[in-house]
Amino acid sequence: MARIGMLTGGGDCPGLNAVIRAVVRKGLMDGHTVFGYHYGWAGVLAAEGRELTQASTNGILPRGGTILGSSRTNPFSEGGPGIDGVRAGLERHGVDVLVPIGGEDTLGVAARLAEAGIPVVGVPKTIDNDLKGTDYTFGFQTAVQIATDAIDRLHTTAESHNRVMVLEVMGRHAGFIAAHAGMAGGGDVILVPERPFGIEEVCGHLRRRHALGHTFSIVVVSEGATLKEGSLSTAGAGQIDAFGHERLGGIAVTLEREIEERTGYETRMTILGHVQRGGTPTAFDRVLATRFGVAAAEAVTAGSSGVMVALHGTDIVQVPISEALGEPKTLDDKFFADAAVFFG
Amino acid sequence: MARIGMLTGGGDCPGLNAVIRAVVRKGLMDGHTVFGYHYGWAGVLAAEGRELTQASTNGILPRGGTILGSSRTNPFSEGGPGIDGVRAGLERHGVDVLVPIGGEDTLGVAARLAEAGIPVVGVPKTIDNDLKGTDYTFGFQTAVQIATDAIDRLHTTAESHNRVMVLEVMGRHAGFIAAHAGMAGGGDVILVPERPFGIEEVCGHLRRRHALGHTFSIVVVSEGATLKEGSLSTAGAGQIDAFGHERLGGIAVTLEREIEERTGYETRMTILGHVQRGGTPTAFDRVLATRFGVAAAEAVTAGSSGVMVALHGTDIVQVPISEALGEPKTLDDKFFADAAVFFG
Amino acid sequence: MARIGMLTGGGDCPGLNAVIRAVVRKGLMDGHTVFGYHYGWAGVLAAEGRELTQASTNGILPRGGTILGSSRTNPFSEGGPGIDGVRAGLERHGVDVLVPIGGEDTLGVAARLAEAGIPVVGVPKTIDNDLKGTDYTFGFQTAVQIATDAIDRLHTTAESHNRVMVLEVMGRHAGFIAAHAGMAGGGDVILVPERPFGIEEVCGHLRRRHALGHTFSIVVVSEGATLKEGSLSTAGAGQIDAFGHERLGGIAVTLEREIEERTGYETRMTILGHVQRGGTPTAFDRVLATRFGVAAAEAVTAGSSGVMVALHGTDIVQVPISEALGEPKTLDDKFFADAAVFFG
Amino acid sequence: MARIGMLTGGGDCPGLNAVIRAVVRKGLMDGHTVFGYHYGWAGVLAAEGRELTQASTNGILPRGGTILGSSRTNPFSEGGPGIDGVRAGLERHGVDVLVPIGGEDTLGVAARLAEAGIPVVGVPKTIDNDLKGTDYTFGFQTAVQIATDAIDRLHTTAESHNRVMVLEVMGRHAGFIAAHAGMAGGGDVILVPERPFGIEEVCGHLRRRHALGHTFSIVVVSEGATLKEGSLSTAGAGQIDAFGHERLGGIAVTLEREIEERTGYETRMTILGHVQRGGTPTAFDRVLATRFGVAAAEAVTAGSSGVMVALHGTDIVQVPISEALGEPKTLDDKFFADAAVFFG
Repeated sequence: MARIGMLTGGGDCPGLNAVIRAVVRKGLMDGHTVFGYHYGWAGVLAAEGRELTQASTNGILPRGGTILGSSRTNPFSEGGPGIDGVRAGLERHGVDVLVPIGGEDTLGVAARLAEAGIPVVGVPKTIDNDLKGTDYTFGFQTAVQIATDAIDRLHTTAESHNRVMVLEVMGRHAGFIAAHAGMAGGGDVILVPERPFGIEEVCGHLRRRHALGHTFSIVVVSEGATLKEGSLSTAGAGQIDAFGHERLGGIAVTLEREIEERTGYETRMTILGHVQRGGTPTAFDRVLATRFGVAAAEAVTAGSSGVMVALHGTDIVQVPISEALGEPKTLDDKFFADAAVFFG
Repeated sequence: MARIGMLTGGGDCPGLNAVIRAVVRKGLMDGHTVFGYHYGWAGVLAAEGRELTQASTNGILPRGGTILGSSRTNPFSEGGPGIDGVRAGLERHGVDVLVPIGGEDTLGVAARLAEAGIPVVGVPKTIDNDLKGTDYTFGFQTAVQIATDAIDRLHTTAESHNRVMVLEVMGRHAGFIAAHAGMAGGGDVILVPERPFGIEEVCGHLRRRHALGHTFSIVVVSEGATLKEGSLSTAGAGQIDAFGHERLGGIAVTLEREIEERTGYETRMTILGHVQRGGTPTAFDRVLATRFGVAAAEAVTAGSSGVMVALHGTDIVQVPISEALGEPKTLDDKFFADAAVFFG
Repeated sequence: MARIGMLTGGGDCPGLNAVIRAVVRKGLMDGHTVFGYHYGWAGVLAAEGRELTQASTNGILPRGGTILGSSRTNPFSEGGPGIDGVRAGLERHGVDVLVPIGGEDTLGVAARLAEAGIPVVGVPKTIDNDLKGTDYTFGFQTAVQIATDAIDRLHTTAESHNRVMVLEVMGRHAGFIAAHAGMAGGGDVILVPERPFGIEEVCGHLRRRHALGHTFSIVVVSEGATLKEGSLSTAGAGQIDAFGHERLGGIAVTLEREIEERTGYETRMTILGHVQRGGTPTAFDRVLATRFGVAAAEAVTAGSSGVMVALHGTDIVQVPISEALGEPKTLDDKFFADAAVFFG
Repeated sequence: MARIGMLTGGGDCPGLNAVIRAVVRKGLMDGHTVFGYHYGWAGVLAAEGRELTQASTNGILPRGGTILGSSRTNPFSEGGPGIDGVRAGLERHGVDVLVPIGGEDTLGVAARLAEAGIPVVGVPKTIDNDLKGTDYTFGFQTAVQIATDAIDRLHTTAESHNRVMVLEVMGRHAGFIAAHAGMAGGGDVILVPERPFGIEEVCGHLRRRHALGHTFSIVVVSEGATLKEGSLSTAGAGQIDAFGHERLGGIAVTLEREIEERTGYETRMTILGHVQRGGTPTAFDRVLATRFGVAAAEAVTAGSSGVMVALHGTDIVQVPISEALGEPKTLDDKFFADAAVFFG
């Protein structure tokens, strides 16, 4: 009979509400109570949130976003309140076990709290799918689906002669979304952060395609893809914005300009941006998120701590949180080769 | 018993294949034959194309693009072959009446041909809905739907504090797509070409919204929207590209930068680009396109010339092509006011 | 400065919440207040409902259903409280003008109240599009879109030899949904209530198609379509259920059985049912519903009564409620002929 | 340098064209040639088909159905030509290795051919996900997504008092689609073939929900779900149709009638039917199908026989075809319990 404190941290990801709903429903069924902190760790530190009940989670399953709100607050950031601030936030609401849902940053906090003796069961979250320890994270398939839908639409525009479409998708450090959507949509060039590319290689490939009779090419590019040539300016990329976040958008702007100038093919870009993060999750992601939530509640019941739930094959398992920390997961060589096999 | 020559000119638009299919099927049923020119007027001038049959239009109804291809060739452009070139292209295939499907440029050619005695029945096409003489053009509702879906997804991203989403949609000279999608999706600011805007007005409105407790705003902007202030650089806007087309993309880039700098709110952009032009048309557009095609075949049967088919209320009618020429249709004041009524 | 009482009556229809939101926002802007009765006329008679504010209509624009609930209660039904019951429900909350959103039944009540001196501005609603006085009603395009998506999916199933797909769509008294979706999706046979059909005619047409080399046919049928032959039993059709509603579902069951037995072609049915009524409205319907709501608030401000808002061409106008009453609107002969033109 | 003979057998499944495309492209790249047999084993026996090239697989990736056609012909069925017929069909086109894509029946043939010394690499296919040896089959997620979309739409119909929606989905022998879609959509009752149910249990559960204040329930039922009570007639279920296929449709008809009569709640059904089998595959299924196709070509290159490609975790592996034969895979108890955990 625990009192669970739940929070969602970091960027938005379709499926967060499905996790919340499942933790609450399975948690209540197992005899626990659930308190939802508002705006991630900020809510813990401010001891702000609300009781979560079956009624308060009605109808949230298909909804994007998170009913708890989120933030990038980290209690261990410089000058932050650290573990004492967290403890105070838990005591205020009688919380005895935390279920933080978040990415590497949130899980890093979770691991430190677990080491300090605060019971924690983590739920991994990254739309980019770049966390180790789990086959997939929820939200990723939704982003891939949205990007694939965009490629489908780009594919069926009038077959004008010599046109290139550039589609920028999410993926700051890993190219899972670009590679999966590129394979699913039949992209002709796929550019990912793991493999810095040369603009002339890309243009050469486009010219070869056109020489073979293709009048149309689609370039799928991760927002974090980088050029081999240091000389080319990528508008906005690498800048640090007012919030301390690296600005990565802009690779499509650069590609549109450079491809058109170098090849003479009419080139047009689409930047999907946050459209990939919002809206209703796919059925796959809702099932994964729901199973993660159920498993997190079960881990609490079992008295686990320092673990996170994870997908291994068709099973939901518990793994040490530490597995997700450190180096991000990157795109498998074989998968990328298979996605790129059809470039010819 | 005419021999119809059909062609599609100008930019892509969902519903072109539905028009083609309907002209062919209704045309054959009425005893005509149909020859499809490839790549718009370029195909007429080169006398290139293919016979269209019931079989060759099987399965194309739901498909984006145009099976005939398109181009921006205009026989009357400087140094062009003019009317003699067109006549030669018609005679080569025994075509006695033309059914060009296109926008103002294509219809302008059609009107001149009709004046010169070549039988022509036009089908109006513009994804921007900015042609006079018809209530709506096909493709427009599809673009509005795609933009609305994007707004829906942006709306449900995590309710972080003080975030602004900028969505750039099509509309070079008219704001129909922005205003319709903005109304349908509940956009908070709608910026259209018909009403040059002040960046400070926009920022002021966003600040007022946030003061009222809204933590999130969506700005829907036509690609052709322009700033009142001449001083602000809009990256890329107004440039003429290598193909003689004005480069309008980029207003979102400017808005993202300016709003973030002036308000301090985290601002992120989405540029939909050609995603709006491609892919399967909505049911509304397929019905409109099919009815246009049927009506065009009927106009041929009736011996009409110099006319185009048009939607008036729930009826398909014939109007002089000249009605569509001249000044583009622009957004109705009342409609814009209704779309903007909820900005508060 | 009126106090508006709003209610939604009858069956569900995508776009109801968009109307509610627009009436509230435009109403408040014009200085009115808005009270929302729960569960249609039942809420008026019970004087139950709640104050509607800008906040209470946040986020409802894209949602299906109605936040006010609905019912089939009619104050003038036998033994009902009649006009005195309605007056009491209005007085209790100080309501001085009613904005009922509903179909023929609801608008019939509205007309009687207006005649009796109660100010009423109606908003027409029918998913079947069978109300006179307006070009279209909201919700209809959404149903057409959903049915068209289903036809698209049915079209691309494996081209097995001699297969027939039967799709039952809504439409108890009029075939608008079947004819529009049939035209949009390329249905091979379209059966509507306005034209009783012979099962042998249908089978004969299917045999001719197969003789021409088509291995696959799609039959789109309105739930209210009826057979010429009185002898054939249509399972469930025509029965009155426990709630006094005619049971119309079942025509697909009959067609599946009869076509398979008579032609020997493998025949399979899909019954969409309430899937057509629920979920997010298309952009077209959201725009129409929003404009209806704005216009209803404006009609209140202008002191109109006994009128309903309506779409005429691209304009929203006011017409006497009586225009919508009496005989339902039925499918235009020309439209049906155009939809059926491709049956060959 | 092999000559691959490819075929698709059995029922339709989104993703078949993606497999075909990948086998062809990877096969050609590895130096093989690919011959596509038409209509499954029927095409092999008749030695009918066509050469498959890069060009002939352009644009098929997102399309439902199979460009090769399919049939239920089995060379080993009674009176069939057996292995000699197959050998003749291979020799006629110089085929030295077969890549059959199909379900248990097709793979059963494949296993017998492999035992007889004909090189065979199988690709597993079942929309119901009930084949052993692989974590998932392609097409399944698409069906789950379509069913989930339907549940979402049903959920947002007007919250009338005491309404029950019954959704019949595919699944003759296994409830994977019902359980996954039920979990993803938040179904209130999930009925699957693996667990015969009592109609009174279902009604009792619906009454309890309504007693708790829920006015609306959704019942998701597999077409192959069966009642415990032998006494209840399920219209059509269990019948053998003219093609020797068991007719399973109809459980929804029975449930609609019985629930309404027993509980007095207005009950309405949706039967999705073949809508689940057709149309474009989800991104997940396109990736899985493409990887299966690539892996099948690689298995040919490696000289494997008697194996099929399969998904294990995130890897594509080869397993003996025999693993997929015998008892169908059924729904895991734990998964079903998790899906049902929220019934309360």
